[in-house]
Amino acid sequence: MTQPAAHRRASIADVARAAGVSVGTVSNVLNRPERVLPGTRERVEAAIEDLSFVRNGSARQLRAGTITTIGAIVLDIANPFFTDVARGIEERLDRDDFTLMVASSDDDPGREQRYLRLFEEHGVQGVMVVPATNDIEHLLAVRRRGTGVVLLDRPSSDPSISSVAVDDVRGGELAASHLLEEGHTRIVFLNGPHTIRQCADRHEGVVTALVAAGLDPASALLEVTVTSLNAEGGEAAIRGLLESGDRPTAVFCVNDLVALGVLRTLRTENIAVPTDVAVVGYDDVAFAAELATPLTSVRQPTHELGVRAADLLLSGTDAEAEHVMFQPTLVVRGSSSSSAT
Amino acid sequence: MTQPAAHRRASIADVARAAGVSVGTVSNVLNRPERVLPGTRERVEAAIEDLSFVRNGSARQLRAGTITTIGAIVLDIANPFFTDVARGIEERLDRDDFTLMVASSDDDPGREQRYLRLFEEHGVQGVMVVPATNDIEHLLAVRRRGTGVVLLDRPSSDPSISSVAVDDVRGGELAASHLLEEGHTRIVFLNGPHTIRQCADRHEGVVTALVAAGLDPASALLEVTVTSLNAEGGEAAIRGLLESGDRPTAVFCVNDLVALGVLRTLRTENIAVPTDVAVVGYDDVAFAAELATPLTSVRQPTHELGVRAADLLLSGTDAEAEHVMFQPTLVVRGSSSSSAT
Repeated sequence: MTQPAAHRRASIADVARAAGVSVGTVSNVLNRPERVLPGTRERVEAAIEDLSFVRNGSARQLRAGTITTIGAIVLDIANPFFTDVARGIEERLDRDDFTLMVASSDDDPGREQRYLRLFEEHGVQGVMVVPATNDIEHLLAVRRRGTGVVLLDRPSSDPSISSVAVDDVRGGELAASHLLEEGHTRIVFLNGPHTIRQCADRHEGVVTALVAAGLDPASALLEVTVTSLNAEGGEAAIRGLLESGDRPTAVFCVNDLVALGVLRTLRTENIAVPTDVAVVGYDDVAFAAELATPLTSVRQPTHELGVRAADLLLSGTDAEAEHVMFQPTLVVRGSSSSSAT
Repeated sequence: MTQPAAHRRASIADVARAAGVSVGTVSNVLNRPERVLPGTRERVEAAIEDLSFVRNGSARQLRAGTITTIGAIVLDIANPFFTDVARGIEERLDRDDFTLMVASSDDDPGREQRYLRLFEEHGVQGVMVVPATNDIEHLLAVRRRGTGVVLLDRPSSDPSISSVAVDDVRGGELAASHLLEEGHTRIVFLNGPHTIRQCADRHEGVVTALVAAGLDPASALLEVTVTSLNAEGGEAAIRGLLESGDRPTAVFCVNDLVALGVLRTLRTENIAVPTDVAVVGYDDVAFAAELATPLTSVRQPTHELGVRAADLLLSGTDAEAEHVMFQPTLVVRGSSSSSAT
């Protein structure tokens, strides 16, 4: 008796019959409840409950596109990089009347899997994932079961899964090459931990630039891991260096907030920028150009990255997989170059 | 045959039997799939599929708290105000090993209702909602069905629903009073549309300050609606005023990005700040203090707001409802006062 029981589910017609209403009214209760009179709505909801219809039926509705949602699983919802990407995603989704639902995995593969399952069950049109692991076998399985998948901010290790990312190795290289061209022979890099892929990649880029200039990274690079990726982290790191008597001539910061902390500390200490110390940031936030010392920074096309990721998902699972690698650019300003304005 | 069919669902034991594994292994496949050998996992997943177990069973797991999630429904995921709030929410959730799932309603009541249903079905511990409507009857119903609800960034109109918000009327009043105290007798307010509650409230605060100073808002206030709430919007608005020959002496901007656009335009036009034009922003972003002209701004306790909202949800549905109204503060800097540094 178990097998057939599990296989036969109440249909929307069953609910309509039990509640004594039309199928259209049940559909309205599910999708546009505000249009249904409270008394009728209660009757339909009672029948739904009675027949255990809601969840599966709702999942079918969702799958049919009634709630047109794209799921995203990121490492941290509150990351400003992701906020900029989200703006691009939403701009693209808006055009097709989709909305975005975001969950944070906190870099925990178990959480990522549970959220993937949740999104699948609700029949989202597709998922964008910043994967917490290098192994993406479970994402290939999601795709096989019919849900589109795009890797976000991570190059795909599998040709059949689309991906959009920014070349962080190149970003690190651009920043370091610029400082070397300005005449510096040693670079202090205020970075985050290498467990964050971006930090590891940017470090690789710095090393690449130093080697290309014929310098030995062992002596020409001092990497300092900041305690937090914000202005307070930058301030603590540069204070530590100044107090140890090791005043750098060139500081590359893993983001503009860290650079902000460096700039305000140097100002307090009456150390001239860029003549005594050159500073380069990353992200090129809107405020960078209007700072007391306009900040040289690596610009990432975050908005375009979001638009493109959404585009790839909405273009459907039948399309060829695409691997998009955006290139960062360097915006040179007064914090690193006396010739810039 | 329909009724009993819908009522009897495959249990986790049915799946275990069909796959020839223990109940614990099925539970692992559902919750910690990375711990299960691929062959076993496939067998269990086949049985799950066969018995149509996944969705309901998983929903039960979720309801039991296996996936400990708080849902948030906001108007726009990419809003930087919300990003700061989210950081506070996540900090508090982390302590109890909860995660955050966020959906954007795009200010559409129908979407809000569908996402509420989705969160309820998955048995989230609670939901935080920036409601798209003044009527919150549907949120009271969610609460009656056993899911905690906290209104975010909106004072509660019902004493039984907790809420956390920031006093935006007070924020507008603080900014305008300061400009009046600096000797200005007419204020240009670069604002967003009044359909955004914050914009309407801040406008009300400006009017309150003008009236308290014995001025007639009809002549002492010029409100200009910016085309977009960013630097480009601020630039376009101030250029429009300058080109019309109506150069203001005091400009209050609805956020710091709009103020950034005003500051850079005034610099380009060689108009001195604050002697020719005083500028006040809103949000007090980290960069405000380090701008070429340090920006006076209204600071909101966004982080604390997020922490408190999460706190109220995790304290459970049995607790007394609380209505928290945070107060903004004004940080005076060189953009509005020659005596400030």
